[in-house]
Amino acid sequence: MQQTVIGIDIGGTNTVFGLVNQSGKIMAHSGIKTQAYAGQNFSVYVQALCEAIQELLADHPTCQLTGIGIGAPNGNIYKGTIEHAPNLSWKGVLPLATMMQETLGAVSVLTNDANAAALGEMLFGNAKELKDFIMITLGTGVGSGIVSGGNLIYGHDGFAGELGHAVIVPNGRQCTCGRQGCLEAYASIRGVLQTLTEVLNTNNTPSSLREMPAEERTPQLIYEAALQGDVIAIETFAQTGKMLGLKLADAANYTSPEAVILFGGIAKAGDFIIHPLKETLEANVHSLYRHKIKILPSALPDNDVAILGSAALIWQHLDSIKTT
Amino acid sequence: MQQTVIGIDIGGTNTVFGLVNQSGKIMAHSGIKTQAYAGQNFSVYVQALCEAIQELLADHPTCQLTGIGIGAPNGNIYKGTIEHAPNLSWKGVLPLATMMQETLGAVSVLTNDANAAALGEMLFGNAKELKDFIMITLGTGVGSGIVSGGNLIYGHDGFAGELGHAVIVPNGRQCTCGRQGCLEAYASIRGVLQTLTEVLNTNNTPSSLREMPAEERTPQLIYEAALQGDVIAIETFAQTGKMLGLKLADAANYTSPEAVILFGGIAKAGDFIIHPLKETLEANVHSLYRHKIKILPSALPDNDVAILGSAALIWQHLDSIKTT
Repeated sequence: MQQTVIGIDIGGTNTVFGLVNQSGKIMAHSGIKTQAYAGQNFSVYVQALCEAIQELLADHPTCQLTGIGIGAPNGNIYKGTIEHAPNLSWKGVLPLATMMQETLGAVSVLTNDANAAALGEMLFGNAKELKDFIMITLGTGVGSGIVSGGNLIYGHDGFAGELGHAVIVPNGRQCTCGRQGCLEAYASIRGVLQTLTEVLNTNNTPSSLREMPAEERTPQLIYEAALQGDVIAIETFAQTGKMLGLKLADAANYTSPEAVILFGGIAKAGDFIIHPLKETLEANVHSLYRHKIKILPSALPDNDVAILGSAALIWQHLDSIKTT
Repeated sequence: MQQTVIGIDIGGTNTVFGLVNQSGKIMAHSGIKTQAYAGQNFSVYVQALCEAIQELLADHPTCQLTGIGIGAPNGNIYKGTIEHAPNLSWKGVLPLATMMQETLGAVSVLTNDANAAALGEMLFGNAKELKDFIMITLGTGVGSGIVSGGNLIYGHDGFAGELGHAVIVPNGRQCTCGRQGCLEAYASIRGVLQTLTEVLNTNNTPSSLREMPAEERTPQLIYEAALQGDVIAIETFAQTGKMLGLKLADAANYTSPEAVILFGGIAKAGDFIIHPLKETLEANVHSLYRHKIKILPSALPDNDVAILGSAALIWQHLDSIKTT
């Protein structure tokens, strides 16, 4: 029998999970559609999830289930709850970890997806040697997991590490959180597309992106245009990188990280974002932190980072139980 | 014999130190003038400091020296060094902890003064029950010590926790660090006096502060005017509180603190600063953190906080050695 955990990633559309060993190898994965249960009671969804997990376990009889790690929006590590998640149909406080633990009989731990991703990077990725770093996930939203002295910063309520909702432009763009000028409003997919529109409106240079209906534009298409030398595309990523660099120059004051690790669709733009990011970071950071902060891409495979992150969460928890 | 530590606070003008027991009682204190040694070799200053400490110890034969805690500008906890401190005459990297340890034969630990103050508050003050809080010292500069999960955040290089140099107004006031718009440029003594000048220039209401030569104005005099109902003084503190509230709303995203503890001359303005601070904080913080963050005054006596903080640093260190 091989000691195995389940890593689960809960998104508004899909829930995916995998059987993961202690080296970070995903032995098998599966999933259910979160949205298919939207109209029903939360317990119906949890029951369906547990059944799907039991099926996967039955197919892998050599895997011994030792724990369950869950990455979920607004996940509270201390209570094992999902709390008022904007993109899930179930509102209020959902005691998911307890429900999973009772049904599957294995210790369950839950945090938000960006925190889980940071742990995944620390156990299996580019942060193996790092004790102080910030993981930033650039996608539909901008998430972050902040590691200090080898420990994830959870804060007193479990909700620390929301760099995406730190303000970068006072009275700036409207953010989905109801406030204005958050980093997320500039560095999420929606934010980058809005920057593209602004660049198109203020710069007359011809661009393949100008001919395209706005609703068809994606960060991937901007990246492809940038690779072709498209000035508008390059400027869009440069502005995104500058915003990230400005905020990271500020973030250094809090936890003085050795590295910032970027993950997600937008991070794929690579040097188109990282060069202006670094330039802006170094130009704006306090001299105490100058030339000290590395900017690294995530080393985890795109499709697996969420599962590996959740698996890392529970492996770390099991490890901490063992040593105390 | 009573187990005792030395808590030392090194400032640009004076160096003060005290014999402190494990309950945070200062049994005796003394000091030397830092500035008197400015033209000489750093080792001459250290020798004088060690001799003054030995004199104090000789006068208290029941005190057994078990460790030395040092709070110093730009203190590096990992290396025990003072590094490029702007307000000391000795430049470069000064290996003070090692020098003290060699001369006095007791384990020495060093960090910056705001970090030490946070530890002092945790061991002896208003943060005894807190595991996640931010200590902010408002004085000549704005310092901060950030505690997360019961541990001070030092960062990878020992220099984390410089909230005073997080930007609050992009392209705003010139800061002493060379950058623009840092919190320190608004909430330090100099910052508050500059705000007072701006308020006087834009508001014609009569004020006792208007008649006073600019160089005679102090936060204490503004406070006394505010107590008399002086509109200009009240507005000056209100603007200072707003700036602090805005930055703390942002800071919550990083470490989600249960409380913010204010210390220093300007914090003495009490509700004149704390009311607008709270109002601005709650109006601007992400909903995840709303109505969760307490604003508390420091519980440590003004004149002793630096010595108690440095003593807390070494007591905590000795405690961690014991338990590992």
